[in-house]
Amino acid sequence: MESEFSNAFPESCAMKGGEGPHSYARNSTFQRSAIEAAKKLLQSAVIDNFDLKTTCGSSGNQIRIADFGCSTGPNTFIAAQNIIEAVQLKYQSQSQNQSTPEFFVFFNDQASNDFNTLFQKLPPNRNYFAAGVPGSFYGRLFPSQSLHLVHSSSSLSWLSKMPKELTDRNCGAWNKGRIFYTNAPKEVEDAYEGQFKMDLATFLQARAQELVGNGIMILMIPAAHDVIDFSVDLYGGKDYEVLGSCLMDMAKLGLISEEKVDTFNVPTYFPRLKDLKKMLESNEDLSVEKMDLLDGNNLIIEPNLGRHVSQCRAAFEVLIEKHFGDGIVDELFDRFAQKLMKSPQLTMYPQKLKLVMLFVVLKRKV
Amino acid sequence: MESEFSNAFPESCAMKGGEGPHSYARNSTFQRSAIEAAKKLLQSAVIDNFDLKTTCGSSGNQIRIADFGCSTGPNTFIAAQNIIEAVQLKYQSQSQNQSTPEFFVFFNDQASNDFNTLFQKLPPNRNYFAAGVPGSFYGRLFPSQSLHLVHSSSSLSWLSKMPKELTDRNCGAWNKGRIFYTNAPKEVEDAYEGQFKMDLATFLQARAQELVGNGIMILMIPAAHDVIDFSVDLYGGKDYEVLGSCLMDMAKLGLISEEKVDTFNVPTYFPRLKDLKKMLESNEDLSVEKMDLLDGNNLIIEPNLGRHVSQCRAAFEVLIEKHFGDGIVDELFDRFAQKLMKSPQLTMYPQKLKLVMLFVVLKRKV
Repeated sequence: MESEFSNAFPESCAMKGGEGPHSYARNSTFQRSAIEAAKKLLQSAVIDNFDLKTTCGSSGNQIRIADFGCSTGPNTFIAAQNIIEAVQLKYQSQSQNQSTPEFFVFFNDQASNDFNTLFQKLPPNRNYFAAGVPGSFYGRLFPSQSLHLVHSSSSLSWLSKMPKELTDRNCGAWNKGRIFYTNAPKEVEDAYEGQFKMDLATFLQARAQELVGNGIMILMIPAAHDVIDFSVDLYGGKDYEVLGSCLMDMAKLGLISEEKVDTFNVPTYFPRLKDLKKMLESNEDLSVEKMDLLDGNNLIIEPNLGRHVSQCRAAFEVLIEKHFGDGIVDELFDRFAQKLMKSPQLTMYPQKLKLVMLFVVLKRKV
Repeated sequence: MESEFSNAFPESCAMKGGEGPHSYARNSTFQRSAIEAAKKLLQSAVIDNFDLKTTCGSSGNQIRIADFGCSTGPNTFIAAQNIIEAVQLKYQSQSQNQSTPEFFVFFNDQASNDFNTLFQKLPPNRNYFAAGVPGSFYGRLFPSQSLHLVHSSSSLSWLSKMPKELTDRNCGAWNKGRIFYTNAPKEVEDAYEGQFKMDLATFLQARAQELVGNGIMILMIPAAHDVIDFSVDLYGGKDYEVLGSCLMDMAKLGLISEEKVDTFNVPTYFPRLKDLKKMLESNEDLSVEKMDLLDGNNLIIEPNLGRHVSQCRAAFEVLIEKHFGDGIVDELFDRFAQKLMKSPQLTMYPQKLKLVMLFVVLKRKV
């Protein structure tokens, strides 16, 4: 069995599309294994929490589903299919007299996402109508009360923007010499956490407005164990530290400017589990129906270094090119691979895994 | 005033996207002038025929609009804005007590359309939610009764496929030595017309299922005058004949294979006005509320030969590359420009214009 895990490289950021060796589509096995692991949880969530009568009564027997942070597939198609199967299963057991509903699936990601690739890869024999919805999910994207079921997997770790204080040399949160919040002053982590908290609240509020009453939202969010010490423990943080040190090396060699490195920070954050739970419980229009952790056995580290590097590259290539300009990515990831090869203990041991995936079901109050 | 018209190069076919000199976005002035000319007709159509109460009652104050054959903009955005303005106008005059509706606009074109470009160009301050819907509009694309207002401009001349008999050497409709139905045997025109008729019926049937009761459909379809003699009169046909003769020249020089030319036919058809009217009246779920012809003064020929050639190229580049392979387009359109320069009377005289634009409003019977 080829079970693969690299790290939390979520789907929401604008990724390199297409089918090339570094494309996101070829390097998103972690998300897929997470989605497959989540299939059972997801299907029980639908069966236990999705109320057919309430949601479909006023909508002419249509069910509208949205996936936030879809990237270019195929994971988003697998998730959509899993959800639809569960709804159909529930439907068949409950409403023998009604005709089966029609499904309309909306695939959302940023406008810079490669929707052309996504659309080319839509399953040809799908049993749903499909649309792409471009735009940041940290804002409204759908009319009020227009969605019955919301899904988002591994996307909410991406921040909407970087807190300014990280690049302000007069500020305690100035993150000079690093590109992430691990092994950084507490102020740096606080700045990351503050942004994450604001972003998540914005996401929940927008979705609460878009969901119909009793509509449900199924989220999978990478998080850090509560007992974690970010300065030594966070799996994933090590990767970013190595990547940061490669950038620093390149700055020392004059290949990129040091200032550019100082103003670059990886825009992802992994909240502590107990903080995340509190944030999810804080929206007054949404009730938490279920929380669960995904089985760690399904989150196995990518044992192949080359593929691991490809996955990192797929996740960050666009971001890095945007910040540093073209032409540094090949060299940067060559250096990254070499450093990892010299210290495989940094990334290659599953027992060092400190990230978990929180699975949560929220329901829109009526 | 820069008023431009080249010919009916509709928006629905997969066009070259982006912003280059041959991109569709830079060369779609005909469609834009048609849309601007249609603005008044369109807005009265909405005001006279769109029933706010019926359509919005069951949809939580949302109005869902779809444009079929959107290409990469900007014309589709202008049309959407015109429609929304008219609905708002009507709304303000009729329903002072209700809150203004929310608009959800769906932009449809084939999956090969450049949706990335379309999404990048979405007006940032638009007052509607937006989605892209990939797929041929000669088939279902939306759930039943989910659209309130359908729009399609200049797109229905594109056929879903070419009739087989055009490339069958044992058939009277074999179109050897030509790429269009002008100056061809009657069987060729019949084959084109048969395909158009089938395609239009399929389009109307699909939209009838997707529209809510009393929902309206506003179509603009290029057509030929009833008195036209296709062998001498059809404006646009001449262009295609010149393009065909350039392909033939290139085949004689061994630059492309003759067989490839024999199997290439331009997949657009301009029905005679009276036939088109009959076809539009034939769907039993739709009633024709209004038919009108767009003011010919707004359909002025592109007086600049270079731009005219660019427009043709924008419309056919993808199609030609797909059929003949890469690398012939530059040479083909150089030859095309040279031939037109030698015989400007073929294309440059507005009085030879034999195409009209039929504007039609259909309503979904309840």
